[in-house]
Amino acid sequence: MTGPQTALLTDFYQLTMAQGYWHTGLREREVCFDYFFRSNPFGGGYTVTAGLPDALAFLRDFAFTDEDLAHLDTLDVFGGKFLEYLGKLRFRGEVHAAAEGTVAFPMEPVLRVTGKLDECQLVESALLNILNFQSLVATKACRIYREAGGDVMEFGLRRAQGVDGAITASRAAFVGGCASTSNVEAGRLHGIPVAGTLAHSWVMAYEDEETALRRYAAIYGSSSVLLVDTYDTLGTGLPAAIAVARELEGRGKKLAGIRLDSGDLAKLSREARAMLDAEGLEDVKIVCSGDLDEHAIRDLKQRGARIDGWGVGTRLVTAGGDPALAGVYKLAAVRTKDGQWEPRSKTSDEPHKATLPGVKQVWRLSGPDGGMVADLIALESEDPDPGSILGTRVSGKGGMELIRGVHAVTPLLEPVMKGGKILGESEDLMTVRERVQMQVGRLPGPVSRIDEPEEHLMLVGPDLLDLTQRLRVTHS
Amino acid sequence: MTGPQTALLTDFYQLTMAQGYWHTGLREREVCFDYFFRSNPFGGGYTVTAGLPDALAFLRDFAFTDEDLAHLDTLDVFGGKFLEYLGKLRFRGEVHAAAEGTVAFPMEPVLRVTGKLDECQLVESALLNILNFQSLVATKACRIYREAGGDVMEFGLRRAQGVDGAITASRAAFVGGCASTSNVEAGRLHGIPVAGTLAHSWVMAYEDEETALRRYAAIYGSSSVLLVDTYDTLGTGLPAAIAVARELEGRGKKLAGIRLDSGDLAKLSREARAMLDAEGLEDVKIVCSGDLDEHAIRDLKQRGARIDGWGVGTRLVTAGGDPALAGVYKLAAVRTKDGQWEPRSKTSDEPHKATLPGVKQVWRLSGPDGGMVADLIALESEDPDPGSILGTRVSGKGGMELIRGVHAVTPLLEPVMKGGKILGESEDLMTVRERVQMQVGRLPGPVSRIDEPEEHLMLVGPDLLDLTQRLRVTHS
Repeated sequence: MTGPQTALLTDFYQLTMAQGYWHTGLREREVCFDYFFRSNPFGGGYTVTAGLPDALAFLRDFAFTDEDLAHLDTLDVFGGKFLEYLGKLRFRGEVHAAAEGTVAFPMEPVLRVTGKLDECQLVESALLNILNFQSLVATKACRIYREAGGDVMEFGLRRAQGVDGAITASRAAFVGGCASTSNVEAGRLHGIPVAGTLAHSWVMAYEDEETALRRYAAIYGSSSVLLVDTYDTLGTGLPAAIAVARELEGRGKKLAGIRLDSGDLAKLSREARAMLDAEGLEDVKIVCSGDLDEHAIRDLKQRGARIDGWGVGTRLVTAGGDPALAGVYKLAAVRTKDGQWEPRSKTSDEPHKATLPGVKQVWRLSGPDGGMVADLIALESEDPDPGSILGTRVSGKGGMELIRGVHAVTPLLEPVMKGGKILGESEDLMTVRERVQMQVGRLPGPVSRIDEPEEHLMLVGPDLLDLTQRLRVTHS
Repeated sequence: MTGPQTALLTDFYQLTMAQGYWHTGLREREVCFDYFFRSNPFGGGYTVTAGLPDALAFLRDFAFTDEDLAHLDTLDVFGGKFLEYLGKLRFRGEVHAAAEGTVAFPMEPVLRVTGKLDECQLVESALLNILNFQSLVATKACRIYREAGGDVMEFGLRRAQGVDGAITASRAAFVGGCASTSNVEAGRLHGIPVAGTLAHSWVMAYEDEETALRRYAAIYGSSSVLLVDTYDTLGTGLPAAIAVARELEGRGKKLAGIRLDSGDLAKLSREARAMLDAEGLEDVKIVCSGDLDEHAIRDLKQRGARIDGWGVGTRLVTAGGDPALAGVYKLAAVRTKDGQWEPRSKTSDEPHKATLPGVKQVWRLSGPDGGMVADLIALESEDPDPGSILGTRVSGKGGMELIRGVHAVTPLLEPVMKGGKILGESEDLMTVRERVQMQVGRLPGPVSRIDEPEEHLMLVGPDLLDLTQRLRVTHS
């Protein structure tokens, strides 16, 4: 994230509630909040988590400055003693989370925060902002990358939702599988390779198209990718690029590629490929851009497009089709005075908005080949044995099942913060990027396909089920 | 905008092209770029422009720092002399723009940049990012506000596209008509009123619902808006709120409102209204939230919902339904050595992607009652006379028409920057907000309705038409 790192990045009600907890004495109470989402974005079968480093940095640095407090004072809602208290407040809680780049599924907590009630409450809005957006874009990028099966460049800066919406999206897009970004600042901040070609305005700035392309190639030689659709793609643009490619060959260089940005990309790329090949320019790559996403890419491939590189912008960085991940942060347990965790859940008039109570863990169940068999959401105290996994589907359908063929059981949530301090070293972005593809590769094909995927098997452990049902009875 | 204010906030190709212009000697050439969009977002009939102050501040402060140059040097693409030149480069051009909060239409330039080719080119990506996103959210907010016809609170922080995507959206939402935001930092930065109620976690943190609501009201008295849907809205939540309201009355206070966040809001709000009224609590307002947008609000109203305040989040700040405004920045003219403007246009294989050449002005044509009759895009040198306006529809349909009933002709583009310096004082946000409603109010009803609106009459002046047709012939 590149926006202001301030504790005021919160919803107003978090502050009024915090003052309330301060008044009623509940602020010291230890609580457990879960971050999870209720459905996968884009109608897909999985979600790629991203944003954990930013979330942890936000918690580590959480503090109200004197300036922040002076501003809050102007709102005439907060008492002087409470503001004094806020000034000393730091986040000192614990966080358990799935590693960044984990493939995750609806209803399972991917981040769990425990700590004092007010500390945990005040950070909610920022945590949701960070995790929701970055996971959304990483998921979109992964879908696009897997459909393209090759070189995807992120070109989204100009249509992104704000400056941070661009820079942060570039990082999440790289995590999800993109090879590069056009955004120079994102490249600098996150160490992502930068890429680009040239714009129509370059071509239009010169008297004629061929001169424009020749001038560009004279400077950038073998790294030139020439845009050919300014006036007439196959009639003037491509012939000019071919002429320039020949001239480069005369100087011992090779044109890197051409770019198509409009028209019927399947047809144009096939015809451009044929024209290039006929001239012996088999090595010149064809890069395409223009309203691309996973569906458009699949369609182009099915129509025989000959495309080597994909410039994907708007629909990637704004998560076209589903511009928000509806991740939530819900109270799951409160520590009573005698030190026991007392589970909490919201029942609601909409059953799908109900939450799972208690301090939980998620176990990922793998088969002998490493493939993902199921995820089991259970109380932390449940300790599943691979040989005898019992669970009920999280959807509530069917009864208790014995899950067979489970070879390994791995907990998803690991400690990542204690006493407000980040545990362990920060991960290299490349490691995170590889984790994504490794995990998606272990999903059954029907779960990872882009349309109408099968649901990943999501189970609730016996003790958690029992607890959930008891709480529902209490509130009905 | 709240992200990094750096000249590296650009697409990589802008820098390679700038180096190219530096090599080929074209960098000094004076050019004219137009910012415009090709269609209104959300299938609507208009777009509300926003972001001008951020765009101008970006241009005013545009500079590469030593750190920026050192980073560019690591990319092994830019020569030392070019980087030295970049270090001294500032934006010294001119900008003409429609005032922020102007209601605008497809194909008309709402911002026009003239200056040296490289200065104008390097700022493209950031200008597009700023103007596209802010205009998009201001437009969405305006549609929502006009449908709600009342108090709209922006609650989008947790689902926004990044930190800046939240804070900048809060400002644009206020411009478009929202009354307040939940985002405390946005409130501080932009002077927007902040609002909020309480969360489910407050209710769940206490042993029982009524105690939780009572405790909140004990602190916040007459400003309390109590959330009543944590467990059972009409069965437990509302009765608890009513009990608390009675207790407040006993202390000479009045409960401000209740909030519904799930379930059938039309039905629940009607029943809640009846229950409140039966208890003599007619002044207690009903606030609703949960996946609201202009369509959901219209539907609720049509179903007889009794809602006084609307909390709108995700679909507002992420511009649900259309998460990007496809605004573009296109070269329109190049100054030749003899000082004449030479028009440029892109023809393209997709006719709808063609551009209008030349240095242009937009004239807004009003009737005797101040209502908007049409907009006329023309060369700056054309000087339309209200009595004899001639134009052709920008769609290309039909021939030249004489437009009758025009009472006043007002130019939309005004000088806002000269020599890289911002002209005039910055506007108060309230002034901008009022401009939006005043202008939308002057649109014919069929143009401003949210679904299947009529197209605003968009005309091209005779000289511009002639020029456009001549250029198309040249390139075909």
